[in-house]
Amino acid sequence: MEILKLKTITEFFEKGLEQHIRYKTTPIELMEPMTYSLLNGGKRVRPVMLLWVLAIQSMDAVKAGLNTANALEAIHTYSLIHDDLPAMDNDDYRRGMLTNHKKFDEATAILAGDALLTDAFGMIADDDQLKPEQKVKLISLLSQAAGSVGMVAGQVFDIQAENKTITHEQLANIHFLKTGKLFLFAVQAAAIIANLTASERQLLETFATHFGRAFQIHNDIMDEIGTPTETGKKTQADSELHKATYPALLTLEGAKEALNSDLEKARSALNELTETTRKPYDSLEVFLQFVTLEQ
Amino acid sequence: MEILKLKTITEFFEKGLEQHIRYKTTPIELMEPMTYSLLNGGKRVRPVMLLWVLAIQSMDAVKAGLNTANALEAIHTYSLIHDDLPAMDNDDYRRGMLTNHKKFDEATAILAGDALLTDAFGMIADDDQLKPEQKVKLISLLSQAAGSVGMVAGQVFDIQAENKTITHEQLANIHFLKTGKLFLFAVQAAAIIANLTASERQLLETFATHFGRAFQIHNDIMDEIGTPTETGKKTQADSELHKATYPALLTLEGAKEALNSDLEKARSALNELTETTRKPYDSLEVFLQFVTLEQ
Repeated sequence: MEILKLKTITEFFEKGLEQHIRYKTTPIELMEPMTYSLLNGGKRVRPVMLLWVLAIQSMDAVKAGLNTANALEAIHTYSLIHDDLPAMDNDDYRRGMLTNHKKFDEATAILAGDALLTDAFGMIADDDQLKPEQKVKLISLLSQAAGSVGMVAGQVFDIQAENKTITHEQLANIHFLKTGKLFLFAVQAAAIIANLTASERQLLETFATHFGRAFQIHNDIMDEIGTPTETGKKTQADSELHKATYPALLTLEGAKEALNSDLEKARSALNELTETTRKPYDSLEVFLQFVTLEQ
Repeated sequence: MEILKLKTITEFFEKGLEQHIRYKTTPIELMEPMTYSLLNGGKRVRPVMLLWVLAIQSMDAVKAGLNTANALEAIHTYSLIHDDLPAMDNDDYRRGMLTNHKKFDEATAILAGDALLTDAFGMIADDDQLKPEQKVKLISLLSQAAGSVGMVAGQVFDIQAENKTITHEQLANIHFLKTGKLFLFAVQAAAIIANLTASERQLLETFATHFGRAFQIHNDIMDEIGTPTETGKKTQADSELHKATYPALLTLEGAKEALNSDLEKARSALNELTETTRKPYDSLEVFLQFVTLEQ
């Protein structure tokens, strides 16, 4: 079975997400802006990572994880819609398309984000393949990862750091809260859904933590050296907002070294997972392509 | 025991809410705008109604409902913060105080609302007094009541109805989605937490539905005839935004009649509840004072 292929799992996720969305009785005026941002061809890194870890276990585990993957992508999407708002990063384009408030209007974008966020928790609660105990753990973790001690806190720190000098550690903390926690959730959720052992979960968390940091450093480097075609948005946007970036704090070379160090640690966690469990965890290396500079 | 007193239950709720909030590790920059709106002396109608129905059962039931009551108020508060934003109703004052984005700024207000909404689901998931099955049901209902088929949908319809002619039925539907669904959740949650019978729950739903509509009609009438001191905000705000109101659609006299009709039906549901269960459900009449014009 060729299930452990990026295209296979991504398409499986896309199909499930679209079916899930169409099924709902949401009024068209709200469904349209929600699906505009949700179904706009993102890389789906978070939900696909979740499903990938489950695919390493069994096809049944993958099916059991679909709603949680939808919820995770819904929350990621809401955060992008709100981050792009004029009061926040004020971005006109995202993934080469108009941002939600530019395509519709500000009120609609705020509400579409609110609806995606709110619906996400219902997607898990209404899942008929998971046990109540599992759903409660998933919802608790997701709320912590995304809420006032997670992603939203990261966004607050991020805004406050504009035009200020911050340390490398502060920048890493902002990104852990803003981005890292949802990557961490992806593997933690897989561990809950597939009932993985504590040691397996811990190694997955190590992988996700380093991957998450590599993801952000890579993003900062591409924002500095990439072209709009590669990044799908205006480059040097962060330096225009006077936001601290890894290249600005560590120099471009230093940022590349930090990236490689995290990639190495992520790889090492996968190797240990593969050796100790005899499961094909090394297949997760495919995600490292998203954060590698030389292709 | 004098537990069935509005002051007693409201103070009990306020104390629990404040303790819950202070306990969290949310960064101060986010905690401050969250608590500004959450602890600003609202009437607490929704959570107190939930706790009141539980108090009719037992003191243990009240304790078991505290986190759900907090979650309900957190979601109500987030909706007020986002509704007040410049892109939405653009209100400067709420309950006689500056609105969140006026006290802080727009970005902070959006994020404080996002955090309250996200944390709300965690408050229920992390509750250690409820069974996983109960928590899952509560989260599912709350997500539906507040999300893309509930409160957010109502807000979308409300904005779209500005400057348009709508029917009485359309207005009732907007308000059922925007306001009624959270009142309904209050009694449904109590039924789940206290394991009430289906018929008891149904009568409570009838009460909450009519109360919710009366609440909105009363609000519209007060907006028309009240003074800023009474309402705590600018009056005639809705007519300035060319929003449809019950007095505008039904005349002031017609709106008063509609209000009295809903009050009568709410009272009748309480009487039936009291008779069939022999529990003091008639004590819920105290909530009708919130929606009665003559005091």
